[in-house]
Amino acid sequence: MRTSSLFQHTDRAAPAGADVESHRLLLRAGYVRPLAGGVFTLLPMGLRATRRVEAVVRQEIEAIGGQELAMPHVLPRWLWERSGRLAAWSDALATFGDSVVAATHEEAVAALAAELIHSWRDLPRLVYQIQAKYRHESRPRAGLIRAREFTMKDSYSLDADEAGMLEQYEAHRHAYRRVFERLSLPVVEVESDAAPMGGYAAHEYMHVCRIGEDTLLLCSGCGWAANREAAGQRTACPRCSAALQTERGVEVGNIFQFGPRYSEMFGAQFTDSDGRRRPVWMGSYGLGIGRTLACLAEVHHDEAGLAWPDAVAPYSVVLVSVRPCAEAEAAYARLMERSVEVLYDDRDVAAGVKFADADLSGIPWRMVVGPRSAGAGGVELSRRRGQDAGVLPLTAAVARLAARARSVPV
Amino acid sequence: MRTSSLFQHTDRAAPAGADVESHRLLLRAGYVRPLAGGVFTLLPMGLRATRRVEAVVRQEIEAIGGQELAMPHVLPRWLWERSGRLAAWSDALATFGDSVVAATHEEAVAALAAELIHSWRDLPRLVYQIQAKYRHESRPRAGLIRAREFTMKDSYSLDADEAGMLEQYEAHRHAYRRVFERLSLPVVEVESDAAPMGGYAAHEYMHVCRIGEDTLLLCSGCGWAANREAAGQRTACPRCSAALQTERGVEVGNIFQFGPRYSEMFGAQFTDSDGRRRPVWMGSYGLGIGRTLACLAEVHHDEAGLAWPDAVAPYSVVLVSVRPCAEAEAAYARLMERSVEVLYDDRDVAAGVKFADADLSGIPWRMVVGPRSAGAGGVELSRRRGQDAGVLPLTAAVARLAARARSVPV
Repeated sequence: MRTSSLFQHTDRAAPAGADVESHRLLLRAGYVRPLAGGVFTLLPMGLRATRRVEAVVRQEIEAIGGQELAMPHVLPRWLWERSGRLAAWSDALATFGDSVVAATHEEAVAALAAELIHSWRDLPRLVYQIQAKYRHESRPRAGLIRAREFTMKDSYSLDADEAGMLEQYEAHRHAYRRVFERLSLPVVEVESDAAPMGGYAAHEYMHVCRIGEDTLLLCSGCGWAANREAAGQRTACPRCSAALQTERGVEVGNIFQFGPRYSEMFGAQFTDSDGRRRPVWMGSYGLGIGRTLACLAEVHHDEAGLAWPDAVAPYSVVLVSVRPCAEAEAAYARLMERSVEVLYDDRDVAAGVKFADADLSGIPWRMVVGPRSAGAGGVELSRRRGQDAGVLPLTAAVARLAARARSVPV
Repeated sequence: MRTSSLFQHTDRAAPAGADVESHRLLLRAGYVRPLAGGVFTLLPMGLRATRRVEAVVRQEIEAIGGQELAMPHVLPRWLWERSGRLAAWSDALATFGDSVVAATHEEAVAALAAELIHSWRDLPRLVYQIQAKYRHESRPRAGLIRAREFTMKDSYSLDADEAGMLEQYEAHRHAYRRVFERLSLPVVEVESDAAPMGGYAAHEYMHVCRIGEDTLLLCSGCGWAANREAAGQRTACPRCSAALQTERGVEVGNIFQFGPRYSEMFGAQFTDSDGRRRPVWMGSYGLGIGRTLACLAEVHHDEAGLAWPDAVAPYSVVLVSVRPCAEAEAAYARLMERSVEVLYDDRDVAAGVKFADADLSGIPWRMVVGPRSAGAGGVELSRRRGQDAGVLPLTAAVARLAARARSVPV
């Protein structure tokens, strides 16, 4: 992609009304644009970074047996009436006519399982989707962190019994750890109270940061953690009696053991090997894609802009021509031949503008073609902001980048 | 993927209420499930086939310079008030509070262009997205062909003048021809009347078939075609005076030249090289993803089930073990090693059931491992329904399938 053709606009100044640094940077770097309160367009760079997050999530959920499907965004109202959540969630749910704009899909999955699961042979199953959802946040803030329209990975496990549910629940804990590790987002897994949702047990994944609106209690001794509801009135750890400290965090994921709750409501039953009818045991597992991206921007930035981990960056390298020249065109062609994801800043503007935009964009590698590197017989390859710069022959620089090709294609 | 694990259910009998053959087959083969009138879940096989269609569309739109972005599903009401379409489309639009569920995105693109396009250097641009949209069809029918929630590729061209708009319009005509050719869907490009939408010129892409609800007039002489509105009261061709024949079709795509209409409403202007402010010239280009898939099912089937073209099939080959055996497991492992997309029917059911489901699913190749092929020293490889069957050594059969790897990865 050539910067001269990109549908994007970068800003030097922080936009008015953006209340947290990650959001200011995503706006300034041309990743997102607000269209209404809590409702955003992902511009091409923002969509590419989002797809990177999605690809890692997809790979880890498929590694534990997930099958992707796509449920509707618009759900029939009766589903939510039957579960009782039409009333319970009335402030957050968008409804029109006899429809509800989906905020989550437990009801829809249970209704689908009632149609597709007949016998014990049809279990276990794990289904998931990655999809935009909507909830009417009364006070959207912090950009993608508390948005009205948001993209989420939601998976649902279907099992014959509690043991099966627990096995898939543990598989998700493993997958979530892998996802956040691969994306370089520090999270704490905290115990959460499943009872209000009618479930058995639940955990939340919190990214601890000062802009978070959730509160968690973290044991300074053994590392036990819980959200405020699950911790209740404790000022000491239930495991090791050490002191609990209070932290603020952003919830980027949550996992629930629902047991037979939704299955019983929607008649999702199967015939056991003994010929008896039993309800399906269900778990549900959410992971906020936009929130994860925004938290990554919150952690990985400096005063010059975003600084993406390799796994998330929309491009691997930004190619900067100090001035338009044939050498830069040749470097661009060579990078594309080797399938290196490259953003080529071919604009006819001052080199300083290009370097500033390169830093702002957060792309991890920088290749510079200019008089200095040409004089030294090659191109200058460095990490973002010119750290560890060295002049290499073009072929060697391209080979170095190609060798670091990402493990997850998008 | 193993059939024993697939979240799917196949039916021998035609489901009640399905009014066209393509929809009956997509339901029976476990590709889609209705959740409400005109609202469907895509099951894993249906989503895979859909992703195939999307991949071809994405590749052809990017080949003409398209940049993917993601606009919101929920749009602010004022956008649609300003364009006048809130009133004009009131029967079809779903609204709640001060929001509209997006049925199309001309308003949103024009508002975005007003923020991002500043000078003639920022043009031309071509942006697109592939996304679920919603319209309140009063009478949904024919499954994915006339649905309420539907997935669409919508692209929008932004140009400095009419000549630029016409160039991008012609590029889309070329891209659409390529898409439908690659997918093996016969379509007719018909002239359509742009005036009711406030545009300059427009075309529709019609798949001619008897279940279509649209009418087109087709010249038996020169091939000129128009929809009923554009043809007006003509019973002779305006180009060659030959007789026009009336056909029925399904509209799978439409392209519009809007000119500066939306740009003027939303202030999408740029500064020309002369320093003058001018409105952006815009075109909009829709292509129905679900409709295209359903039309493909309508054309490509026989009495035994779906018969997908290679470009669309959810898997390249179905591997059938006549009974569970180590040879079938080995064949499955070998196919996966070579990245052949394989559905392995490993169920402990009669071979006849597996063959019937293989035919129903529409997967183009069939590999059978059983006593007959094993006796002849290999596996039986054939097209769907056993046409052109031959026994080959496993290695040769896998190599033949791997060599036909699809040009568009998903």
